[in-house]
Amino acid sequence: MPSPQLPKLAVIAREAGVSVATVSKAINGRADVSPRTRRLVAEVLRRRGYPSPPARRPRGGLVDIVLQGLDSPYALAIFGGVESAAWDAGLDLVVSAVLDRTRHGQPPTAWLERVSARDSAGVLLVRTSITAPQRAWLADHGVPVVIVDPRRPPPEGVPSVASDNVGGAVAATEHLIGLGHRRIAVVTGREGVPCADERLAGHRSAMAAAGLSTVEVGGCFQTEPARRAVAGLLASTSPAPTAFFACSDAMALGVFQALSAHGLRVPDDASVVGFDDSVLATSVTPQLTTVRQPWSALGAAALACLLAPPRERMSLPTELVVRASTAPR
Amino acid sequence: MPSPQLPKLAVIAREAGVSVATVSKAINGRADVSPRTRRLVAEVLRRRGYPSPPARRPRGGLVDIVLQGLDSPYALAIFGGVESAAWDAGLDLVVSAVLDRTRHGQPPTAWLERVSARDSAGVLLVRTSITAPQRAWLADHGVPVVIVDPRRPPPEGVPSVASDNVGGAVAATEHLIGLGHRRIAVVTGREGVPCADERLAGHRSAMAAAGLSTVEVGGCFQTEPARRAVAGLLASTSPAPTAFFACSDAMALGVFQALSAHGLRVPDDASVVGFDDSVLATSVTPQLTTVRQPWSALGAAALACLLAPPRERMSLPTELVVRASTAPR
Repeated sequence: MPSPQLPKLAVIAREAGVSVATVSKAINGRADVSPRTRRLVAEVLRRRGYPSPPARRPRGGLVDIVLQGLDSPYALAIFGGVESAAWDAGLDLVVSAVLDRTRHGQPPTAWLERVSARDSAGVLLVRTSITAPQRAWLADHGVPVVIVDPRRPPPEGVPSVASDNVGGAVAATEHLIGLGHRRIAVVTGREGVPCADERLAGHRSAMAAAGLSTVEVGGCFQTEPARRAVAGLLASTSPAPTAFFACSDAMALGVFQALSAHGLRVPDDASVVGFDDSVLATSVTPQLTTVRQPWSALGAAALACLLAPPRERMSLPTELVVRASTAPR
Repeated sequence: MPSPQLPKLAVIAREAGVSVATVSKAINGRADVSPRTRRLVAEVLRRRGYPSPPARRPRGGLVDIVLQGLDSPYALAIFGGVESAAWDAGLDLVVSAVLDRTRHGQPPTAWLERVSARDSAGVLLVRTSITAPQRAWLADHGVPVVIVDPRRPPPEGVPSVASDNVGGAVAATEHLIGLGHRRIAVVTGREGVPCADERLAGHRSAMAAAGLSTVEVGGCFQTEPARRAVAGLLASTSPAPTAFFACSDAMALGVFQALSAHGLRVPDDASVVGFDDSVLATSVTPQLTTVRQPWSALGAAALACLLAPPRERMSLPTELVVRASTAPR
């Protein structure tokens, strides 16, 4: 929402016969406005008493990154990728960790004003989002936004960068099928979170392609809910599944616990695949077969997406890392 | 080292009869230059063909923080404290993680130029340092520097902020003495690192005050060297120490391992105290009695030190956290 001090873009847009977004781009010297339109807008602005917009707005060499706190190893790994790529590009990174600072974990207006004032090259939102009015403000000020690893479906028009969750889930499931498993259970993440939905879709697709029916339990991405869900499944199902695809490493740990409590050994009695390749994967015994997410590359790709003409959505390949938690049936 | 493009401050200083530092402050519009001196310097600058310095240099609302990589939980905890305090102060934080980017892990000249160009309110060096020419450059450009938790003695004139390592080591040692232990071994960090030297000094002081002689082995701050050192001590000393003060939690883990390999139980046969209160402390069994460092407060204090008239050295209190690894003798 523009503050009262700002030019009333809607008035200028109406008089120039262009969109508010185009006026904003012209004011901010964005390259993606034709010289003709730029001249037209400049003429209206001049007539209305505003100073002429620059031919091309200078950039301050800064990129903003917003994290939900600094305690998630995934967010930090993405951050590391952004930081390294920014350094290589001669840009410096302004970091805001906004968890719990406002009711909805979103930055306040003062932050938006600072971002515009320092002429940020753009804002990277890591596993977080901003409100529609906040996006509109940044768009009005010519500051592009990219969401990395979105926790909810990205708003229309906002580019996002994520792992190829579908492909990763297909690889995990096909690995288990290839080992001879037929009764395979999936432990899903939180419904509505894009990566959870995509991993489930990938799993279902691979199972369907093999002519197998799915067994699905919910684990909310966390160890204890996953343990409970699998314990319930083992108590109620006979014969038990011989393989589990947990849609996060944390949930795979819960699967390990439930299997152990049920007297089942990994991988002799049941195979387990995770997703993430977090530090957990090599901390557990046996070490976890899992789908590696390209955390650092996600950060670098997001920065590239911010600096180049953005694509609506970018998906980076994952890699199946086979360790000791999976074995032939 | 000033680049060739910069005003030759030494020439101006000589002509104005003031120090180079004062010329620099005047050029950069620092508040701590008297109006008379400011006018004097401005006159010389004018005479030498330079533009007049501003009355007071505007600040960009940015603070720079330099970390040696993003993988140290300690550096991140300090970073979190800085970030939170900066947010409260309405400042945004520019992050550079410079590990391995240059041969000595120090930022290149291009970085210095960007810091000056964006009119940074100051640079916080977390567990790292910069070269003397780099410090001189920043001083010439009116950018103050503070070192947090220095890994080597801070250069003269550069303020630093650290935990009260001496006090923490005294508290740890007095805790063991208070439990009745008399044969207490200390596992020291890397010699020459200020916090290692200070913890050893605190330990020696508390032992001397109790009339006890010290047993000292080196552990380089890390688990495996500490394990080896304590294993060697146990193999060569009889009777074995009944208590160990490890100058880091990581080394305390090594002490646990050496004791276990020697058939000694914690805390029944030997008490162990660590230093840091890292995530390790509550991950081990039994949970570790340790000295908690005020990581987040260190970050906040460092920022305050940067923004206020700096003190040469600031030391923040630690806290002994008694858990299950220590018991009466």
